[in-house]
Amino acid sequence: MSLPLKAVRLTPSIAKAYVNQFPVSPDIETNLAGAIRQVLNNPGSLIRASLAFQAGRAFELRRDCAESLAIGIEYMHSASLLFDDLPMMDDASERRGHTCPHILYGEAACVLAALAFINRGYALLWSSMAAYSLNSDEAAHRIEHCLGLKGMLTGQSQDLHRPGGWPAHDVLRVSIGKTVALIRLTLVLPAVLSGARKRVVHQLDRIGVYWGLSYQILDDLKDLGIEKKYTGKTTHRDETLGRPNFALAAGMARCQSYLARLLELSQTNLAALTRLHPGLSFLTTTQERLELECSQFLSPTKKQESERKIKI
Amino acid sequence: MSLPLKAVRLTPSIAKAYVNQFPVSPDIETNLAGAIRQVLNNPGSLIRASLAFQAGRAFELRRDCAESLAIGIEYMHSASLLFDDLPMMDDASERRGHTCPHILYGEAACVLAALAFINRGYALLWSSMAAYSLNSDEAAHRIEHCLGLKGMLTGQSQDLHRPGGWPAHDVLRVSIGKTVALIRLTLVLPAVLSGARKRVVHQLDRIGVYWGLSYQILDDLKDLGIEKKYTGKTTHRDETLGRPNFALAAGMARCQSYLARLLELSQTNLAALTRLHPGLSFLTTTQERLELECSQFLSPTKKQESERKIKI
Repeated sequence: MSLPLKAVRLTPSIAKAYVNQFPVSPDIETNLAGAIRQVLNNPGSLIRASLAFQAGRAFELRRDCAESLAIGIEYMHSASLLFDDLPMMDDASERRGHTCPHILYGEAACVLAALAFINRGYALLWSSMAAYSLNSDEAAHRIEHCLGLKGMLTGQSQDLHRPGGWPAHDVLRVSIGKTVALIRLTLVLPAVLSGARKRVVHQLDRIGVYWGLSYQILDDLKDLGIEKKYTGKTTHRDETLGRPNFALAAGMARCQSYLARLLELSQTNLAALTRLHPGLSFLTTTQERLELECSQFLSPTKKQESERKIKI
Repeated sequence: MSLPLKAVRLTPSIAKAYVNQFPVSPDIETNLAGAIRQVLNNPGSLIRASLAFQAGRAFELRRDCAESLAIGIEYMHSASLLFDDLPMMDDASERRGHTCPHILYGEAACVLAALAFINRGYALLWSSMAAYSLNSDEAAHRIEHCLGLKGMLTGQSQDLHRPGGWPAHDVLRVSIGKTVALIRLTLVLPAVLSGARKRVVHQLDRIGVYWGLSYQILDDLKDLGIEKKYTGKTTHRDETLGRPNFALAAGMARCQSYLARLLELSQTNLAALTRLHPGLSFLTTTQERLELECSQFLSPTKKQESERKIKI
């Protein structure tokens, strides 16, 4: 899933860290190195890393730990995209405006590159957990839950293997595993490591669910190719491949109303959260950008409301 | 790579833990669950888990930590086999006497199953590292090194991508990354976590290198299909696929003499190690079994020596 560009104010150090935290020495086999470098050179919005880093700083994690946590999560996302685009999965030919690395360097090199991102990702996550060992048990549990059978893997597997049509509620169930899990982890992990109050962690988790579902529905709407803007991704893949797409399953009207409801819910939870922890008010920018991004697919009234709110 | 069955005296609890540490709930998607269960039901020799568990106990790690460490390492090996057998890699049709899971459940399910083993593997490794946090930095570094670009991934990538013939020294270089790395980690990690003396860690590492190379050469010899015994694996894959095979690259005479030399070196290091740490004398059984397994490919003199030594 691609998230809207400039969805958050990107911390410049995060863009540098995304490349610098993954040294690729010259002796690495050419195809493997090529696939890794293509990912590093086209990092996308880095929204997960930016959010996790800013949240980490808001919870007063050490700067190096917040960075490791942020880049570790982003590398897990990078790995998931490499797998998603393979012929055996979504069979995509384009990602972030470029030919997919599996076409340029072969499938095996991409699988190994994805495993390298996972390996480096776990090492970075571990390094920040080791610095906050008091809370590392819960952190480890949440990481395993998100990246494992109870999260992304089952989501992706259901996405690929369900025969026939997709009822709307099944589409959402798949999204909860496939897309939402990593956004929840992004928001929750810095809070958990810092030992934040349970209520704060819970609110962040809720926002992660509403944002994650909103982003997934946005992605499903973009897949239909009804927006004018070039997304840098192959469109109409869901319909062609029989994959879950909420807009196709629920119809446009229900999809719009559900999306509007998700934005309201995240807005309400965000307001409650920033009252509990004012340092997290940077999240409001993401909420506003998400509302703007969604507004093109919402009814004119909703669109006007959204535009008024962020004063563009 | 498959290691000889009964290469070590299998700790019964390890065979149980290999299955029990990986709960697969009934709601997991059918193909993904099928691929995971097939791996769990055909665990192979579990030599890595057995060695790591026994070493962990010899270094007085807590029983639950030694078990987590052992099963974590074995799950990484299980994941690597799922990837190795894929059509894009070794394109194998049989593993441990059964049709490969990618044929039964599809490639995507196997990739996701492998990722599930990796995710569970890291969780188990972390849980034992967290209990020995004083030495967890070095442990984390060695895990990253073994499983990442400096270890298994580059080894596998070189294995797949080298065009044309394979000079003997290149075959060994690939093995150091591909096969040897995880055997070194198996022996070294329990020592590192327990804070063992550097000299002990170094000796274990050396034995890991010699055993790893011996097992790889044994595997290469078996691939030629010159032994009578059924190995449960597709044979002649290396020649067909142009993959590195030391016996093919170096010729039988050089291969035999190199294998004999490796067995001598591991024997010498093992004698020195058990003088330093008598609790590690259980490793002698593996050395003897390895010598017996190799003896069928060695000259009659070497074979007799080996048979005399283990009194069969």
